[in-house]
Amino acid sequence: MKLYNYFRSSASFRVRIALHLKGLPFEYVPVHIAKGEHKQAAWAGVLTEGLVPALELDDGTRLTQSMAIIEYLDETQPGARLLPTDALGRARVRALAQIVACEIHPINNLRVLKYLTRELKVEDEPKNVWYRHWVREGLEAFERQLAAGPTGRFCHGDTPTLADCCLVPQIFNGQRFNTDFSGLTRTMAVFEQCMQHEAFQKAQPSACPDAEA
Amino acid sequence: MKLYNYFRSSASFRVRIALHLKGLPFEYVPVHIAKGEHKQAAWAGVLTEGLVPALELDDGTRLTQSMAIIEYLDETQPGARLLPTDALGRARVRALAQIVACEIHPINNLRVLKYLTRELKVEDEPKNVWYRHWVREGLEAFERQLAAGPTGRFCHGDTPTLADCCLVPQIFNGQRFNTDFSGLTRTMAVFEQCMQHEAFQKAQPSACPDAEA
Repeated sequence: MKLYNYFRSSASFRVRIALHLKGLPFEYVPVHIAKGEHKQAAWAGVLTEGLVPALELDDGTRLTQSMAIIEYLDETQPGARLLPTDALGRARVRALAQIVACEIHPINNLRVLKYLTRELKVEDEPKNVWYRHWVREGLEAFERQLAAGPTGRFCHGDTPTLADCCLVPQIFNGQRFNTDFSGLTRTMAVFEQCMQHEAFQKAQPSACPDAEA
Repeated sequence: MKLYNYFRSSASFRVRIALHLKGLPFEYVPVHIAKGEHKQAAWAGVLTEGLVPALELDDGTRLTQSMAIIEYLDETQPGARLLPTDALGRARVRALAQIVACEIHPINNLRVLKYLTRELKVEDEPKNVWYRHWVREGLEAFERQLAAGPTGRFCHGDTPTLADCCLVPQIFNGQRFNTDFSGLTRTMAVFEQCMQHEAFQKAQPSACPDAEA
Protein backbone atom coordinates (compact mmCIF):
# COMPACT_ATOMS: atom_id res chain seq x y z
CA MET A 1 0.00 0.00 0.00
CA LYS A 2 1.05 3.57 -0.72
CA LEU A 3 0.01 6.47 1.47
CA TYR A 4 0.00 9.87 -0.22
CA ASN A 5 0.47 12.27 2.63
CA TYR A 6 2.09 15.32 4.17
CA PHE A 7 3.85 15.25 7.51
CA ARG A 8 1.86 18.16 8.94
CA SER A 9 -1.54 17.15 7.55
CA SER A 10 -3.79 16.22 10.43
CA ALA A 11 -5.92 13.88 8.30
CA SER A 12 -2.78 12.12 6.99
CA PHE A 13 -1.58 11.72 10.58
CA ARG A 14 -4.84 9.92 11.48
CA VAL A 15 -4.24 7.29 8.80
CA ARG A 16 -0.56 6.88 9.71
CA ILE A 17 -1.61 6.12 13.30
CA ALA A 18 -4.13 3.52 12.11
CA LEU A 19 -1.56 1.83 9.85
CA HIS A 20 0.95 1.65 12.70
CA LEU A 21 -1.67 0.46 15.21
CA LYS A 22 -2.56 -2.39 12.87
CA GLY A 23 1.10 -3.06 12.09
CA LEU A 24 0.65 -2.68 8.33
CA PRO A 25 3.65 -1.79 6.16
CA PHE A 26 3.17 1.08 3.70
CA GLU A 27 5.13 3.21 1.27
CA TYR A 28 5.21 6.86 2.28
CA VAL A 29 4.65 9.21 -0.69
CA PRO A 30 5.12 12.84 0.38
CA VAL A 31 3.02 15.60 -1.20
CA HIS A 32 4.02 19.10 -0.11
CA ILE A 33 0.65 20.66 0.66
CA ALA A 34 2.06 23.92 2.03
CA LYS A 35 3.79 24.47 -1.33
CA GLY A 36 0.55 23.62 -3.14
CA GLU A 37 1.94 20.49 -4.82
CA HIS A 38 -1.44 18.77 -4.52
CA LYS A 39 -2.92 21.39 -6.88
CA GLN A 40 -0.37 20.75 -9.61
CA ALA A 41 -1.26 18.91 -12.80
CA ALA A 42 1.13 16.05 -12.03
CA TRP A 43 -1.01 15.08 -9.04
CA ALA A 44 -4.43 15.63 -10.63
CA GLY A 45 -4.66 12.06 -11.89
CA VAL A 46 -3.63 10.65 -8.52
CA LEU A 47 -5.36 12.87 -5.99
CA THR A 48 -8.89 13.02 -7.39
CA GLU A 49 -10.12 15.30 -4.60
CA GLY A 50 -6.95 17.41 -4.60
CA LEU A 51 -6.39 16.41 -0.98
CA VAL A 52 -4.26 14.13 1.16
CA PRO A 53 -4.35 11.53 2.49
CA ALA A 54 -5.09 9.02 -0.25
CA LEU A 55 -4.35 5.34 0.20
CA GLU A 56 -3.43 3.32 -2.87
CA LEU A 57 -4.06 -0.40 -2.59
CA ASP A 58 -1.79 -2.92 -4.28
CA ASP A 59 -4.23 -3.26 -7.22
CA GLY A 60 -4.08 0.52 -7.81
CA THR A 61 -7.46 1.36 -6.23
CA ARG A 62 -7.21 4.67 -4.39
CA LEU A 63 -9.22 5.43 -1.28
CA THR A 64 -9.84 8.92 0.08
CA GLN A 65 -11.09 10.59 3.25
CA SER A 66 -9.23 9.59 6.38
CA MET A 67 -12.10 8.10 8.42
CA ALA A 68 -13.31 6.07 5.44
CA ILE A 69 -9.77 4.79 4.86
CA ILE A 70 -9.38 3.77 8.50
CA GLU A 71 -12.70 1.91 8.55
CA TYR A 72 -11.72 0.13 5.33
CA LEU A 73 -8.40 -0.95 6.83
CA ASP A 74 -10.16 -2.11 9.97
CA GLU A 75 -12.70 -4.16 8.00
CA THR A 76 -10.20 -5.83 5.67
CA GLN A 77 -6.82 -6.04 7.39
CA PRO A 78 -5.48 -8.01 10.34
CA GLY A 79 -4.14 -6.40 13.49
CA ALA A 80 -5.67 -4.40 16.32
CA ARG A 81 -9.40 -3.61 16.04
CA LEU A 82 -9.99 0.13 15.72
CA LEU A 83 -13.79 -0.01 15.86
CA PRO A 84 -15.66 -1.73 18.73
CA THR A 85 -17.54 -4.95 18.04
CA ASP A 86 -20.88 -3.60 19.33
CA ALA A 87 -23.07 -1.16 17.38
CA LEU A 88 -23.47 1.32 20.27
CA GLY A 89 -19.71 1.32 20.79
CA ARG A 90 -19.11 1.94 17.10
CA ALA A 91 -21.63 4.80 17.16
CA ARG A 92 -19.83 6.38 20.12
CA VAL A 93 -16.35 6.00 18.59
CA ARG A 94 -17.51 7.37 15.22
CA ALA A 95 -19.23 10.32 16.91
CA LEU A 96 -16.08 11.17 18.88
CA ALA A 97 -14.01 10.95 15.69
CA GLN A 98 -16.54 13.15 13.91
CA ILE A 99 -16.43 15.85 16.59
CA VAL A 100 -12.83 16.31 15.49
CA ALA A 101 -13.24 15.57 11.78
CA CYS A 102 -16.52 17.45 11.18
CA GLU A 103 -16.62 20.16 13.86
CA ILE A 104 -13.03 21.25 14.53
CA HIS A 105 -10.50 20.37 11.86
CA PRO A 106 -12.31 21.52 8.66
CA ILE A 107 -12.68 25.09 9.93
CA ASN A 108 -8.97 25.30 10.71
CA ASN A 109 -7.18 23.55 7.91
CA LEU A 110 -4.57 25.22 5.75
CA ARG A 111 -6.77 26.21 2.83
CA VAL A 112 -9.33 27.85 5.14
CA LEU A 113 -6.64 29.77 7.02
CA LYS A 114 -5.17 30.87 3.67
CA TYR A 115 -8.61 32.09 2.54
CA LEU A 116 -8.97 34.13 5.73
CA THR A 117 -5.61 35.78 5.10
CA ARG A 118 -5.71 36.25 1.34
CA GLU A 119 -9.36 36.84 0.52
CA LEU A 120 -10.77 38.28 3.73
CA LYS A 121 -7.57 40.11 4.76
CA VAL A 122 -7.78 38.78 8.30
CA GLU A 123 -4.63 39.61 10.29
CA ASP A 124 -2.54 36.99 12.08
CA GLU A 125 -3.89 37.57 15.58
CA PRO A 126 -7.63 37.35 14.81
CA LYS A 127 -6.82 34.35 12.61
CA ASN A 128 -5.13 32.67 15.57
CA VAL A 129 -8.07 33.57 17.81
CA TRP A 130 -10.39 31.98 15.22
CA TYR A 131 -8.25 28.85 15.24
CA ARG A 132 -8.16 28.52 19.00
CA HIS A 133 -11.89 29.31 19.32
CA TRP A 134 -12.98 26.31 17.21
CA VAL A 135 -10.45 23.94 18.74
CA ARG A 136 -11.49 24.89 22.26
CA GLU A 137 -15.23 24.79 21.56
CA GLY A 138 -14.95 21.42 19.83
CA LEU A 139 -12.73 19.87 22.48
CA GLU A 140 -15.10 21.02 25.22
CA ALA A 141 -17.84 19.00 23.50
CA PHE A 142 -15.35 16.12 23.17
CA GLU A 143 -14.56 16.32 26.89
CA ARG A 144 -18.26 16.20 27.80
CA GLN A 145 -18.71 13.11 25.63
CA LEU A 146 -15.70 11.44 27.25
CA ALA A 147 -17.31 12.16 30.65
CA ALA A 148 -20.66 10.76 29.51
CA GLY A 149 -19.49 7.35 28.27
CA PRO A 150 -17.22 4.34 28.80
CA THR A 151 -13.91 6.15 28.48
CA GLY A 152 -10.95 4.17 29.77
CA ARG A 153 -7.25 4.74 29.29
CA PHE A 154 -8.19 5.62 25.70
CA CYS A 155 -11.27 7.41 24.32
CA HIS A 156 -13.36 4.24 24.35
CA GLY A 157 -12.16 1.58 26.73
CA ASP A 158 -8.55 0.58 27.20
CA THR A 159 -7.37 0.16 23.62
CA PRO A 160 -6.96 2.77 20.88
CA THR A 161 -9.76 3.29 18.37
CA LEU A 162 -10.63 5.53 15.43
CA ALA A 163 -11.48 8.22 18.00
CA ASP A 164 -7.89 8.30 19.30
CA CYS A 165 -6.59 8.35 15.70
CA CYS A 166 -8.53 11.60 15.21
CA LEU A 167 -7.95 13.18 18.62
CA VAL A 168 -4.16 13.07 18.73
CA PRO A 169 -3.48 15.00 15.47
CA GLN A 170 -5.96 17.65 16.60
CA ILE A 171 -4.08 18.15 19.87
CA PHE A 172 -0.79 18.42 17.95
CA ASN A 173 -2.36 21.11 15.76
CA GLY A 174 -3.85 22.90 18.73
CA GLN A 175 -0.45 22.96 20.42
CA ARG A 176 1.09 24.66 17.36
CA PHE A 177 -1.43 27.48 17.78
CA ASN A 178 -1.05 27.70 21.58
CA THR A 179 -4.58 26.56 22.31
CA ASP A 180 -5.67 26.60 25.95
CA PHE A 181 -6.29 22.97 26.97
CA SER A 182 -6.92 23.73 30.65
CA GLY A 183 -9.79 21.85 32.24
CA LEU A 184 -9.90 19.27 29.44
CA THR A 185 -8.63 16.68 31.87
CA ARG A 186 -10.05 13.50 30.34
CA THR A 187 -9.11 14.56 26.82
CA MET A 188 -5.54 15.40 27.76
CA ALA A 189 -5.14 12.24 29.85
CA VAL A 190 -6.11 10.20 26.80
CA PHE A 191 -3.70 12.21 24.67
CA GLU A 192 -0.84 11.55 27.10
CA GLN A 193 -1.72 7.86 27.15
CA CYS A 194 -1.70 7.72 23.34
CA MET A 195 1.71 9.38 23.16
CA GLN A 196 3.17 6.60 25.28
CA HIS A 197 2.09 4.15 22.58
CA GLU A 198 4.66 3.25 19.94
CA ALA A 199 2.20 3.53 17.03
CA PHE A 200 1.40 7.16 17.84
CA GLN A 201 5.09 7.93 18.26
CA LYS A 202 5.97 6.42 14.88
CA ALA A 203 3.15 8.30 13.14
CA GLN A 204 3.87 11.76 14.49
CA PRO A 205 4.90 14.56 12.13
CA SER A 206 8.49 14.77 13.38
CA ALA A 207 8.99 11.07 12.57
CA CYS A 208 7.94 11.47 8.92
CA PRO A 209 10.44 11.35 6.02
CA ASP A 210 9.30 14.79 4.80
CA ALA A 211 9.39 16.40 8.27
CA GLU A 212 10.64 19.98 8.51
CA ALA A 213 11.72 21.80 11.62
CA MET B 1 -37.03 7.12 18.86
CA LYS B 2 -36.84 10.88 19.25
CA LEU B 3 -34.93 13.06 16.81
CA TYR B 4 -33.79 16.41 18.19
CA ASN B 5 -33.49 18.58 15.14
CA TYR B 6 -34.04 21.83 13.30
CA PHE B 7 -35.78 22.03 9.95
CA ARG B 8 -32.99 23.99 8.30
CA SER B 9 -30.07 22.05 9.83
CA SER B 10 -28.29 20.19 7.08
CA ALA B 11 -27.01 17.49 9.44
CA SER B 12 -30.53 16.97 10.86
CA PHE B 13 -31.88 16.67 7.30
CA ARG B 14 -29.38 13.83 6.62
CA VAL B 15 -30.77 11.80 9.51
CA ARG B 16 -34.40 12.52 8.58
CA ILE B 17 -33.69 11.15 5.09
CA ALA B 18 -32.15 7.98 6.54
CA LEU B 19 -35.09 7.45 8.91
CA HIS B 20 -37.57 7.83 6.04
CA LEU B 21 -35.51 5.64 3.69
CA LYS B 22 -35.58 2.88 6.30
CA GLY B 23 -39.24 3.51 7.08
CA LEU B 24 -38.63 4.06 10.78
CA PRO B 25 -41.14 6.06 12.83
CA PHE B 26 -39.72 8.83 15.02
CA GLU B 27 -40.84 11.69 17.23
CA TYR B 28 -39.74 15.07 15.90
CA VAL B 29 -38.39 17.36 18.65
CA PRO B 30 -37.66 20.83 17.25
CA VAL B 31 -34.74 22.87 18.61
CA HIS B 32 -34.56 26.39 17.20
CA ILE B 33 -30.86 26.70 16.35
CA ALA B 34 -31.15 30.09 14.66
CA LYS B 35 -32.55 31.49 17.94
CA GLY B 36 -29.75 29.78 19.87
CA GLU B 37 -32.05 27.44 21.80
CA HIS B 38 -29.43 24.68 21.71
CA LYS B 39 -27.14 26.87 23.84
CA GLN B 40 -29.72 27.34 26.58
CA ALA B 41 -29.44 25.61 29.93
CA ALA B 42 -32.65 23.64 29.37
CA TRP B 43 -30.99 21.76 26.53
CA ALA B 44 -27.56 21.30 28.12
CA GLY B 45 -28.48 17.98 29.69
CA VAL B 46 -29.97 16.69 26.44
CA LEU B 47 -27.64 18.00 23.74
CA THR B 48 -24.25 17.11 25.18
CA GLU B 49 -22.38 18.60 22.23
CA GLY B 50 -24.67 21.63 21.99
CA LEU B 51 -25.60 20.54 18.46
CA VAL B 52 -28.39 18.92 16.51
CA PRO B 53 -29.17 16.30 15.42
CA ALA B 54 -29.25 13.95 18.37
CA LEU B 55 -31.16 10.68 18.23
CA GLU B 56 -32.65 9.36 21.46
CA LEU B 57 -33.27 5.63 21.52
CA ASP B 58 -36.22 4.16 23.40
CA ASP B 59 -33.98 3.30 26.38
CA GLY B 60 -32.88 6.95 26.64
CA THR B 61 -29.43 6.51 25.06
CA ARG B 62 -28.62 9.53 22.92
CA LEU B 63 -26.51 9.31 19.79
CA THR B 64 -24.82 12.27 18.13
CA GLN B 65 -23.14 13.16 14.84
CA SER B 66 -25.27 12.54 11.77
CA MET B 67 -23.07 10.03 9.93
CA ALA B 68 -22.54 7.98 13.11
CA ILE B 69 -26.31 7.98 13.74
CA ILE B 70 -27.06 6.83 10.20
CA GLU B 71 -24.53 3.99 10.36
CA TYR B 72 -25.99 2.92 13.72
CA LEU B 73 -29.51 2.86 12.27
CA ASP B 74 -28.27 0.90 9.28
CA GLU B 75 -26.52 -1.66 11.46
CA THR B 76 -29.38 -2.21 13.89
CA GLN B 77 -32.67 -1.48 12.13
CA PRO B 78 -34.63 -3.15 9.36
CA GLY B 79 -35.41 -1.48 6.04
CA ALA B 80 -33.35 -0.33 3.07
CA ARG B 81 -29.58 -0.80 3.33
CA LEU B 82 -27.78 2.56 3.33
CA LEU B 83 -24.22 1.16 3.27
CA PRO B 84 -23.07 -1.31 0.59
CA THR B 85 -22.36 -4.89 1.60
CA ASP B 86 -18.77 -4.84 0.24
CA ALA B 87 -15.86 -3.09 1.99
CA LEU B 88 -14.73 -1.13 -1.09
CA GLY B 89 -18.28 0.06 -1.67
CA ARG B 90 -18.58 1.15 1.94
CA ALA B 91 -15.27 3.01 1.66
CA ARG B 92 -16.51 4.84 -1.44
CA VAL B 93 -19.88 5.75 0.06
CA ARG B 94 -18.30 6.96 3.30
CA ALA B 95 -15.74 9.01 1.38
CA LEU B 96 -18.47 10.67 -0.70
CA ALA B 97 -20.44 11.42 2.46
CA GLN B 98 -17.31 12.83 4.09
CA ILE B 99 -16.57 15.16 1.17
CA VAL B 100 -19.81 16.87 2.17
CA ALA B 101 -19.61 16.37 5.93
CA CYS B 102 -15.88 17.12 6.41
CA GLU B 103 -14.95 19.39 3.50
CA ILE B 104 -17.99 21.54 2.69
CA HIS B 105 -20.62 21.79 5.38
CA PRO B 106 -18.50 22.55 8.49
CA ILE B 107 -17.01 25.67 6.93
CA ASN B 108 -20.45 27.01 6.07
CA ASN B 109 -22.67 26.21 8.98
CA LEU B 110 -24.56 28.82 10.94
CA ARG B 111 -22.09 29.28 13.79
CA VAL B 112 -19.18 29.79 11.38
CA LEU B 113 -21.13 32.32 9.30
CA LYS B 114 -22.10 34.12 12.53
CA TYR B 115 -18.45 34.25 13.60
CA LEU B 116 -17.48 35.76 10.24
CA THR B 117 -20.11 38.46 10.67
CA ARG B 118 -19.81 39.21 14.38
CA GLU B 119 -16.16 38.65 15.20
CA LEU B 120 -14.40 39.27 11.89
CA LYS B 121 -16.86 41.95 10.65
CA VAL B 122 -17.12 40.30 7.25
CA GLU B 123 -19.86 41.94 5.13
CA ASP B 124 -22.72 39.99 3.55
CA GLU B 125 -21.31 39.78 0.04
CA PRO B 126 -17.83 38.43 0.88
CA LYS B 127 -19.55 36.06 3.33
CA ASN B 128 -21.74 34.76 0.51
CA VAL B 129 -18.70 34.46 -1.76
CA TRP B 130 -16.99 32.44 1.00
CA TYR B 131 -20.04 30.18 1.23
CA ARG B 132 -20.29 29.56 -2.49
CA HIS B 133 -16.52 29.07 -2.81
CA TRP B 134 -16.41 26.08 -0.44
CA VAL B 135 -19.60 24.52 -1.78
CA ARG B 136 -18.37 24.79 -5.35
CA GLU B 137 -14.85 23.52 -4.60
CA GLY B 138 -16.19 20.59 -2.58
CA LEU B 139 -18.83 19.62 -5.11
CA GLU B 140 -16.27 19.68 -7.92
CA ALA B 141 -14.31 17.04 -5.98
CA PHE B 142 -17.59 15.18 -5.41
CA GLU B 143 -18.34 15.29 -9.16
CA ARG B 144 -14.89 13.89 -9.99
CA GLN B 145 -15.44 11.02 -7.56
CA LEU B 146 -18.85 10.29 -9.06
CA ALA B 147 -17.15 10.14 -12.49
CA ALA B 148 -14.43 7.83 -11.18
CA GLY B 149 -16.62 5.11 -9.65
CA PRO B 150 -19.76 2.98 -9.95
CA THR B 151 -22.30 5.80 -9.84
CA GLY B 152 -25.76 4.80 -10.99
CA ARG B 153 -29.07 6.56 -10.61
CA PHE B 154 -27.83 7.41 -7.11
CA CYS B 155 -24.32 8.21 -5.85
CA HIS B 156 -23.37 4.56 -5.58
CA GLY B 157 -25.42 2.23 -7.73
CA ASP B 158 -29.17 2.43 -8.15
CA THR B 159 -30.36 2.73 -4.57
CA PRO B 160 -29.86 5.58 -2.08
CA THR B 161 -27.00 5.38 0.41
CA LEU B 162 -25.40 7.46 3.16
CA ALA B 163 -23.76 9.48 0.37
CA ASP B 164 -27.14 10.61 -0.99
CA CYS B 165 -28.30 11.40 2.57
CA CYS B 166 -25.40 13.87 2.80
CA LEU B 167 -25.48 15.25 -0.74
CA VAL B 168 -29.10 16.37 -0.88
CA PRO B 169 -29.07 18.70 2.16
CA GLN B 170 -25.87 20.28 0.84
CA ILE B 171 -27.55 21.06 -2.50
CA PHE B 172 -30.53 22.57 -0.65
CA ASN B 173 -28.13 24.79 1.31
CA GLY B 174 -26.19 25.71 -1.79
CA GLN B 175 -29.40 26.74 -3.51
CA ARG B 176 -30.27 29.11 -0.64
CA PHE B 177 -26.96 30.90 -1.28
CA ASN B 178 -27.31 30.89 -5.09
CA THR B 179 -24.34 28.60 -5.67
CA ASP B 180 -23.35 27.94 -9.28
CA PHE B 181 -23.98 24.25 -9.95
CA SER B 182 -23.18 24.43 -13.68
CA GLY B 183 -21.11 21.57 -15.05
CA LEU B 184 -21.80 19.36 -12.02
CA THR B 185 -23.90 17.13 -14.23
CA ARG B 186 -23.56 13.82 -12.41
CA THR B 187 -24.06 15.43 -9.02
CA MET B 188 -27.16 17.30 -10.07
CA ALA B 189 -28.61 14.27 -11.89
CA VAL B 190 -28.32 12.30 -8.64
CA PHE B 191 -29.90 15.19 -6.73
CA GLU B 192 -32.86 15.28 -9.14
CA GLN B 193 -33.23 11.51 -8.85
CA CYS B 194 -33.25 11.73 -5.05
CA MET B 195 -35.91 14.42 -5.06
CA GLN B 196 -38.24 12.09 -6.96
CA HIS B 197 -37.97 9.68 -4.03
CA GLU B 198 -40.67 9.90 -1.36
CA ALA B 199 -38.20 9.63 1.54
CA PHE B 200 -36.26 12.70 0.43
CA GLN B 201 -39.52 14.62 -0.13
CA LYS B 202 -40.79 13.77 3.36
CA ALA B 203 -37.49 14.76 4.98
CA GLN B 204 -37.03 18.15 3.32
CA PRO B 205 -37.06 21.32 5.40
CA SER B 206 -40.42 22.59 4.09
CA ALA B 207 -42.07 19.35 5.22
CA CYS B 208 -40.89 19.70 8.84
CA PRO B 209 -43.25 20.66 11.69
CA ASP B 210 -41.03 23.63 12.62
CA ALA B 211 -40.64 24.87 9.02
CA GLU B 212 -40.65 28.61 8.45
CA ALA B 213 -41.14 30.40 5.15
